[in-house]
Amino acid sequence: MRVLKNTWYMAAWDDEIQPERLFERVLLEKHILFFRDSRGTVRALGDRCPHRFAPLHLGVHCGDSVQCKYHGLEFGIDGRCVRSPHGNGVIPQAANVPAYPTVERYGAIWIWLGDPTLADPATVPVFPLLDPDVYAVGHGYLKAKANYQLEADNILDLSHIEFMHPLFATEAVRRGKTEASQDGNIVWSKRLITNDHLPPFLEEIFGLSPGSEVDRWLDCRWQVPALIELYSGATLAGRPRSEGREAPGVHFFTPETEKTTHYWYAMCCPKALGPQAQDVAQRQTEAVRGPFVSEDLPVVEGQQAMIGDADFMSLRPVLMPGDAAAVKARRVLEKLIAAEESQR
Amino acid sequence: MRVLKNTWYMAAWDDEIQPERLFERVLLEKHILFFRDSRGTVRALGDRCPHRFAPLHLGVHCGDSVQCKYHGLEFGIDGRCVRSPHGNGVIPQAANVPAYPTVERYGAIWIWLGDPTLADPATVPVFPLLDPDVYAVGHGYLKAKANYQLEADNILDLSHIEFMHPLFATEAVRRGKTEASQDGNIVWSKRLITNDHLPPFLEEIFGLSPGSEVDRWLDCRWQVPALIELYSGATLAGRPRSEGREAPGVHFFTPETEKTTHYWYAMCCPKALGPQAQDVAQRQTEAVRGPFVSEDLPVVEGQQAMIGDADFMSLRPVLMPGDAAAVKARRVLEKLIAAEESQR
Amino acid sequence: MRVLKNTWYMAAWDDEIQPERLFERVLLEKHILFFRDSRGTVRALGDRCPHRFAPLHLGVHCGDSVQCKYHGLEFGIDGRCVRSPHGNGVIPQAANVPAYPTVERYGAIWIWLGDPTLADPATVPVFPLLDPDVYAVGHGYLKAKANYQLEADNILDLSHIEFMHPLFATEAVRRGKTEASQDGNIVWSKRLITNDHLPPFLEEIFGLSPGSEVDRWLDCRWQVPALIELYSGATLAGRPRSEGREAPGVHFFTPETEKTTHYWYAMCCPKALGPQAQDVAQRQTEAVRGPFVSEDLPVVEGQQAMIGDADFMSLRPVLMPGDAAAVKARRVLEKLIAAEESQR
Repeated sequence: MRVLKNTWYMAAWDDEIQPERLFERVLLEKHILFFRDSRGTVRALGDRCPHRFAPLHLGVHCGDSVQCKYHGLEFGIDGRCVRSPHGNGVIPQAANVPAYPTVERYGAIWIWLGDPTLADPATVPVFPLLDPDVYAVGHGYLKAKANYQLEADNILDLSHIEFMHPLFATEAVRRGKTEASQDGNIVWSKRLITNDHLPPFLEEIFGLSPGSEVDRWLDCRWQVPALIELYSGATLAGRPRSEGREAPGVHFFTPETEKTTHYWYAMCCPKALGPQAQDVAQRQTEAVRGPFVSEDLPVVEGQQAMIGDADFMSLRPVLMPGDAAAVKARRVLEKLIAAEESQR
Repeated sequence: MRVLKNTWYMAAWDDEIQPERLFERVLLEKHILFFRDSRGTVRALGDRCPHRFAPLHLGVHCGDSVQCKYHGLEFGIDGRCVRSPHGNGVIPQAANVPAYPTVERYGAIWIWLGDPTLADPATVPVFPLLDPDVYAVGHGYLKAKANYQLEADNILDLSHIEFMHPLFATEAVRRGKTEASQDGNIVWSKRLITNDHLPPFLEEIFGLSPGSEVDRWLDCRWQVPALIELYSGATLAGRPRSEGREAPGVHFFTPETEKTTHYWYAMCCPKALGPQAQDVAQRQTEAVRGPFVSEDLPVVEGQQAMIGDADFMSLRPVLMPGDAAAVKARRVLEKLIAAEESQR
Repeated sequence: MRVLKNTWYMAAWDDEIQPERLFERVLLEKHILFFRDSRGTVRALGDRCPHRFAPLHLGVHCGDSVQCKYHGLEFGIDGRCVRSPHGNGVIPQAANVPAYPTVERYGAIWIWLGDPTLADPATVPVFPLLDPDVYAVGHGYLKAKANYQLEADNILDLSHIEFMHPLFATEAVRRGKTEASQDGNIVWSKRLITNDHLPPFLEEIFGLSPGSEVDRWLDCRWQVPALIELYSGATLAGRPRSEGREAPGVHFFTPETEKTTHYWYAMCCPKALGPQAQDVAQRQTEAVRGPFVSEDLPVVEGQQAMIGDADFMSLRPVLMPGDAAAVKARRVLEKLIAAEESQR
């Protein structure tokens, strides 16, 4: 599949990869084996044994290596075969699997599936929302039967809220003004709704007294490959944002295949809120899962079903004002992919 | 898929499309949305929103328009976007979906999927059997995992009855004489069995006293694309048909895809029979469903499995006398498709 | 699919094809109908009726013929249509299905899917282990979602035992010496483990007293297309094999499709053991099924999943000492297939 190669992709939440367990996931159509080494560091190897192509994830976790279930070849954290129990123990030169650079940061595992010599842990994007000193974080995972760009489009155009998510919609949503902007390869979609009244559960989330008139914002920050921070907040009408409260979150997407997507989401609650912050973050995460699964997913998967094998742009989508940010994001990605291709 | 385009296809029984509901069906590999407008008229639109390709059938029925679930664009009965709730409400020129001509007639919905300028409601075929003044009609629906022409072949060669449908077969079935004939683009398959004795349930259907010796006919009238009327009747041996009774029905097929078919069938009981006519029609419809599902369907779907992706004719089917009508029907259809293709 | 055509393939255990029943199986991507004629001889015909392509296995067993369920054509044991119940009963010249030579031998059905003029029953391989005068045989069947050569590889390299089958492995397994050799188109993989101690259930199988020190052998004899005899035995350390005991078996593979395999296995117990021989063979057959299903199958099917649509060799498998026999076997098969291709 045609994707950006030299970039960090999210691979898992950190708790998806348990000590002494082998974990398998397909990312960008590659079969990847994940495990923690003896120091707890996450390692990612090609999941296909170079000998007879058995899946290594069916094998045995051996601290700093993985033993293939089929004939016992062991592969170290660099993907090289470190032990053959056969014959005189000689290890063929080619007995290696790819080792993919990984970084564990922000409670997530990041993987570099491109040229490993270009993988710099310092270039994992910075996500202040996932800074454990500042935010308590609740997180979840979904798999969608749709291309990852359809998922990113979904978050980048939140004008869909009033139609798709009646519980979150207010009569003022359609008065919202959205601005798309770009800062280098970062794309912003900022939506402001002034003089709104929120449903009680949103008033509670934003710490507002019942019936408050508020200004409400929904600001998305997108970066490659499909990593979105969503700042959702409200303040009393006309007052500065700093006096209000935010219920921010993140939406991270990685292609499994051309038509399926790993979707990791998190809701973030400022620890300044006090000891209940983690509980609040967790409850918000659980609260958004319902609409994600029952409202967004059928539509996004329905889009994919309608698109089928066609290229999205070849179907000439009609552009609406709300698409501005999604279009910018697709252009940034296309530009970077084309640049990679021209270098080969 | 290669099909006749400029013709009326059956799309649904009228009661499949309920007021204030959105109904989706794939016909000729096109995703179609059906709904009734504020006057109850059935409308058919392309089901793919031109904006982000969400399926419109997931959206909201709004009387004379349909609102997309994703971003709220509304499409009128002519397929044009009539309302955008976004920005200044400007509607892009290209924000349309196809609108397909439909006709509601004979308790069925007919759709024209070819050049809409050629769609003339007057050319919906005439089906006296479905005239509500004359017949009470019971109807049913099946989906078959087989090409629609295999389904039409099935009805056009009823010499299969004695092998596939033991309940309906009699010892005399094999003495039946079948004649295929053609009248323009109409194909007839007429089967006559003289001096037969029927099983009790057929005697009851035809109003015969037990043990009657009868002449029995099974006459099929096919027309494009795959619409068949079946006149099944019996009269006392040697007596004119007008003294006997018929239990006629229709078998209408529309391709869903190359390898799947919508199958609508009906049994028709003359209202002259009295107030029980509707009940009789209904019971006969229920009675034939069993054999259709448990006897015809496995064989027809088995044919498709054996044919796979091959072209039917490329496998050089051996011709038997009973195939005459099916061959004529396939030739009519092929001639009309070729004529359409030559005009492009 | 690319396979050896002019060779005997196993098609079924004899008890899979019951009298007066029609049995269907896909072999080498061909749909085959099996039945026993009036003398009990197994017959194999193409399963696709030449008339309208209905599957004949849905039809009726008529002693020495099969009647199609659809229109009643009957096909004899040579595949020729022997009766048409239609019109004047004339049978079109082309109304035939292929008839495949079969042989019932060793409790198994063998089929020749290549040029029938080359099919010589005398060339069905000889399997002394399946000689009912000498061995009691228990047998089983599995279907694997993997190419048949992956299955043959599995048996030809039993160095996998200690990693995949802990119950059968001993600490000495890795000291085993394996020798691959070739005798014409027969490939041998011989594995010897000296001075071993066996788990109690293996001691019982080999009739050893607890704690015996033994020499143990696992000798595989492969021939085309993928027919393997496995001689597993043990004798007291240093003593000749003739003083020990064997628990031999066979592993026969036939491609269903490129990616699925029919797997027939048997365990063989010398009748010299006495009246309990059949019971022993049966119990051993049941005992090995567990590991086959829960240990071998996931790995072999996992290989296939990792290989996907690629050609096995194109992925450049790393060679280990244990692969020697499997490589020889693949080369014999490749040589014979290439020879067949050059003759066309």
